[in-house]
Amino acid sequence: MPTEYRTKRKIEFSDTDMAGIVHFTRFFIYMESVEHEFLRSLGTSVSTTIDGKEIGWPRLTASCEYLSPLKFEDEVDILLSVKKKGTKSITYQFHFTLEGCDIARGEVTTVCCITNLGDKLQPISIPDIISNKISI
Amino acid sequence: MPTEYRTKRKIEFSDTDMAGIVHFTRFFIYMESVEHEFLRSLGTSVSTTIDGKEIGWPRLTASCEYLSPLKFEDEVDILLSVKKKGTKSITYQFHFTLEGCDIARGEVTTVCCITNLGDKLQPISIPDIISNKISI
Amino acid sequence: MPTEYRTKRKIEFSDTDMAGIVHFTRFFIYMESVEHEFLRSLGTSVSTTIDGKEIGWPRLTASCEYLSPLKFEDEVDILLSVKKKGTKSITYQFHFTLEGCDIARGEVTTVCCITNLGDKLQPISIPDIISNKISI
Amino acid sequence: MPTEYRTKRKIEFSDTDMAGIVHFTRFFIYMESVEHEFLRSLGTSVSTTIDGKEIGWPRLTASCEYLSPLKFEDEVDILLSVKKKGTKSITYQFHFTLEGCDIARGEVTTVCCITNLGDKLQPISIPDIISNKISI
Repeated sequence: MPTEYRTKRKIEFSDTDMAGIVHFTRFFIYMESVEHEFLRSLGTSVSTTIDGKEIGWPRLTASCEYLSPLKFEDEVDILLSVKKKGTKSITYQFHFTLEGCDIARGEVTTVCCITNLGDKLQPISIPDIISNKISI
Repeated sequence: MPTEYRTKRKIEFSDTDMAGIVHFTRFFIYMESVEHEFLRSLGTSVSTTIDGKEIGWPRLTASCEYLSPLKFEDEVDILLSVKKKGTKSITYQFHFTLEGCDIARGEVTTVCCITNLGDKLQPISIPDIISNKISI
Repeated sequence: MPTEYRTKRKIEFSDTDMAGIVHFTRFFIYMESVEHEFLRSLGTSVSTTIDGKEIGWPRLTASCEYLSPLKFEDEVDILLSVKKKGTKSITYQFHFTLEGCDIARGEVTTVCCITNLGDKLQPISIPDIISNKISI
Repeated sequence: MPTEYRTKRKIEFSDTDMAGIVHFTRFFIYMESVEHEFLRSLGTSVSTTIDGKEIGWPRLTASCEYLSPLKFEDEVDILLSVKKKGTKSITYQFHFTLEGCDIARGEVTTVCCITNLGDKLQPISIPDIISNKISI
């Protein structure tokens, strides 16, 4: 069964735009924050050090399908599920719902990299300490 | 030949994150702003009134593929091209380059709607005054 | 004794900039969100309807003094206190601390207004239902 | 005569909020971007290397007074002027106007620092190469 993680988020005033709804770019912020919460729930972080190397997860692709708008002070439910686990990358799916109604569906593929500052990003195999905790 | 529009954008400090590069969500802001510049270049706006009705262009989908990072003070070239023109929707493609090198490719589908505040969004045929100026 | 409200906030990746710390503008987002949480704790909202009129709280002034930086995944403590209650306006002070250390001090003055869309903002006396719950 | 710098900025959709106007926090982004444009006009940058040291300008304080709202697609005039030049710090004032009408007035104090990553920020005297180009 694919690894899942559920959370909630309260919509802030600064998330809205002049159309009176949440600006479409904010959903990507929400997805990133859920991914980071998920990594913390595994005992790691999106920005961590393993064996003396800085490890990060730059994005390869990100997409979102918008089904129904969110408004200020809504409390949206977000379900992260792992769609694919490659040797070096993970693809997450996100399902946003509000009181059971579909709001949006998103997908983000991230790749595990050594991110020592100043150097080029270097993709690496996902460390076992993380990989072992994720199933699909 | 598909309608195209070219512009440039200077990266601001607030576009960056602690990885030292432009945060991935900013590319969606850039795409939206180029789309709006494009609509203005046609003599209209993303938020306008036609025949006494408020017309807007909510997003249906948005996606981005990240190929190489952008940094503070880079001046990125952005090419918008119209990929698809439906009766009610337009799909835009965006190609980000820096000194000829690929940075990112994005795609956004928007749907033409009556957006009178308080009412539900109501999709409508793209007004001729706009549609006639866009080819694919 | 002045009315107070305490909360916490976890720093997100998108709050950071290329200096590796929280971007200075984010503190103003945090202050606004705490103010809105505070208004909800009084049983009202920053965007509400009273006697058939849309009531909002536009900002007159906002300021912040930065004492020490915040980093990704820090959980900052924020204390809101009401510094001044005028007939039509409220001045809030905000104290940001991390494990007891000073991070920042901010101040925001908001004015109670009728905010019917399309009309000019019209300052009004703070409704008793809100004013009665705030002391200084 | 105090050093001045003038620029313009077109308001983007993502700058607005559900009140239909520019969100108050955006003015701080605008101020920072004008400051950076100003530094580039002097032949330097807010993020530069002098004598092998990374030099940056963290903010000490930032404030803004809001006089009249900005809307989507407005093109606001922004005047930066140097209010104070200390040994290690600069205080900038910003005046926002739209077709001659007052929109907002802001102030930001920044301090010149060595910002080598991982180290604590270390305030230093403003390098002559910059200081000599700024009068008050």
